[in-house]
Amino acid sequence: MTVDTVGVVGGGQLGRMLGEAAAPLGIDLVVSDPTPAAPAARVAEQLVGGFDDPETVRALAERADVLTYEIELADPDVLERVGEETGTSVHPAPKTLRLIQDKLVQKRRLAEAGVPVPAFRPVASVGDLREAIEEFGAPVMLKAREGGYDGRGTVRIDGPEEAPAAIEAIEGPAMVEEFVPFDCELAMMGCRGDGETDAFPVTETIHEAAILRETVSPPRVPESVRERARRVARDVLAVMEGRGVFGIELFAADGEILLNEIAPRPHNSGHWTIEGCHTSQFEQHLRGVAGLPLGTTERRCPTALSNLLGTVEDPRPATLEGRASALATDRLALHWYGKDEVRPLRKMGHVTLPGAGASPEELLGAVREARAELSA
Amino acid sequence: MTVDTVGVVGGGQLGRMLGEAAAPLGIDLVVSDPTPAAPAARVAEQLVGGFDDPETVRALAERADVLTYEIELADPDVLERVGEETGTSVHPAPKTLRLIQDKLVQKRRLAEAGVPVPAFRPVASVGDLREAIEEFGAPVMLKAREGGYDGRGTVRIDGPEEAPAAIEAIEGPAMVEEFVPFDCELAMMGCRGDGETDAFPVTETIHEAAILRETVSPPRVPESVRERARRVARDVLAVMEGRGVFGIELFAADGEILLNEIAPRPHNSGHWTIEGCHTSQFEQHLRGVAGLPLGTTERRCPTALSNLLGTVEDPRPATLEGRASALATDRLALHWYGKDEVRPLRKMGHVTLPGAGASPEELLGAVREARAELSA
Repeated sequence: MTVDTVGVVGGGQLGRMLGEAAAPLGIDLVVSDPTPAAPAARVAEQLVGGFDDPETVRALAERADVLTYEIELADPDVLERVGEETGTSVHPAPKTLRLIQDKLVQKRRLAEAGVPVPAFRPVASVGDLREAIEEFGAPVMLKAREGGYDGRGTVRIDGPEEAPAAIEAIEGPAMVEEFVPFDCELAMMGCRGDGETDAFPVTETIHEAAILRETVSPPRVPESVRERARRVARDVLAVMEGRGVFGIELFAADGEILLNEIAPRPHNSGHWTIEGCHTSQFEQHLRGVAGLPLGTTERRCPTALSNLLGTVEDPRPATLEGRASALATDRLALHWYGKDEVRPLRKMGHVTLPGAGASPEELLGAVREARAELSA
Repeated sequence: MTVDTVGVVGGGQLGRMLGEAAAPLGIDLVVSDPTPAAPAARVAEQLVGGFDDPETVRALAERADVLTYEIELADPDVLERVGEETGTSVHPAPKTLRLIQDKLVQKRRLAEAGVPVPAFRPVASVGDLREAIEEFGAPVMLKAREGGYDGRGTVRIDGPEEAPAAIEAIEGPAMVEEFVPFDCELAMMGCRGDGETDAFPVTETIHEAAILRETVSPPRVPESVRERARRVARDVLAVMEGRGVFGIELFAADGEILLNEIAPRPHNSGHWTIEGCHTSQFEQHLRGVAGLPLGTTERRCPTALSNLLGTVEDPRPATLEGRASALATDRLALHWYGKDEVRPLRKMGHVTLPGAGASPEELLGAVREARAELSA
């Protein structure tokens, strides 16, 4: 079947960058988002409705040849039911979304499949948590099983005395993981097409307060570590079902790789591919879900990226400042997400710097400098 | 002044590709086009109205911080008046559009500025034309002074006996040029920013029946010829007024360069820059008209392009066929223009192939092969 229209649950920056990639491919993008005039609405058609609202998802399915989602808040049950009732296939598979949404279930399934993960266990009480601290040694990471992102839903615990407050902060079902004293964090965008899998080059990711700030590819780790990352990505992709791209976040520690988390969608750690690779993760996701051949994941050149985050203390209308100064940087590419409101640490845009011959440090320094010209 | 919204007269494929480039820059694009749901409407807002309709142009000016145009059918008088009345600046300058619209005036002005052009003269009668044939020697090219494109408005005349029919075919004011027995055709995208000028790398253009079919950059001409082309482009840009990109079409004959024609807008001969350069001609045009710093015109890698033209005999609804086969070509980028109707030789899309290490011939061969998988 020829796919002319792709329906996307979610119309944030990922939906917007999917829209930018869709038009050249001759794919019409329709997104659904509860916020009118969502970022994607500038480059795609938008239906206004909740991510988990069955009527909105049904309307999306009726407009589209295939459904996907750019936000984990999509409801796998709704997607599955609407998919069955309308005959519109959903990619990645709703059961994979369900698997990923519950961090405990995700880790269990991946561990079973031989993917190296940090030691973990479910936590139902302060007692469970204290036991885990004893077993793993402090610090440990307490995580909400569902709904966390950008550091929300995760608490670092440095000793058993912090257990009661942490359990209270997380609310709801939780799991605990050993703290991984990583040398650096890496990420890979895995790709599942129609009978083929692939992955974009390994990327180093730099977080601060649990929010991604910068990425650089190739990463500052030896080839042996990159090769381990590629093997882990392959094993992860074998567990996933359905088509599309998957953000695979990894820890590199002592030459070993441990899986941190998976996102069944384009991911911030893959934004650099727009300029840095011949195929972007957004085009690749569309190729995947539309059943088209995957594009090459070849890197064009070493590439660094820096996120533009909201620095305000309270929400206010967003305005892009400093654009002319930033764009004076040779080769710099700007990606503004078109969000109406800036909020503390909200992702408002990013800048990418492709460089030939520059070291990762030089590229990161230059992209940071250009980013510092901008504010939202 | 910060430019948030750019208004574009014309919403065809050039408007669409401008829209794809605008969103990442945080620029809202509004186009005007008489055809509802024009190609650009998928990625930009559209006002429906004629290119030269003063009310539509005024509405566009009122929505936008700066006005530009992607079609020569825009009316320089209307643009100038609306610009003055609304205080919205227009780029490139309406007087430059006026200069370019009349091929005779264009050639005269460029010749005065020292730009090498083929011998030419105005033609008001069959007698004038016969005199020119005698002076220049057959064949000669008879051209309508205004309104021609893709070969329309141009007639090749192989002898004085063809003069009466040619004059009749052209109707209206005309000019005649000597026929240039070129070795190849070249093109350059010139760029005028705020106090800076630049040009993208020289490109070879391959026409058939006066319609651009393929391009490859770098071109198959010696460096000395490329350098002459760059000098001519510099001289041409000095004659232009206002900001934006300019398509500069050239003949290369016996190691010399002659100017063929100029377009005051993004041009088919510059589409390859989307993948082939760090900045695309569309981003560059937006940077220019918005008064932002121009981006680097550096080439990423040798790049070939092939146009997808309508092969039908009569107009019918367009459908993109063969996409999956074409996209199986490594590195191939597809650009579908989203036109509802396919017509004989209408430009429906293009494919671009960036290649490292491949010769121009190999790249052209591969991009042609991929294009042949597609039909509209």
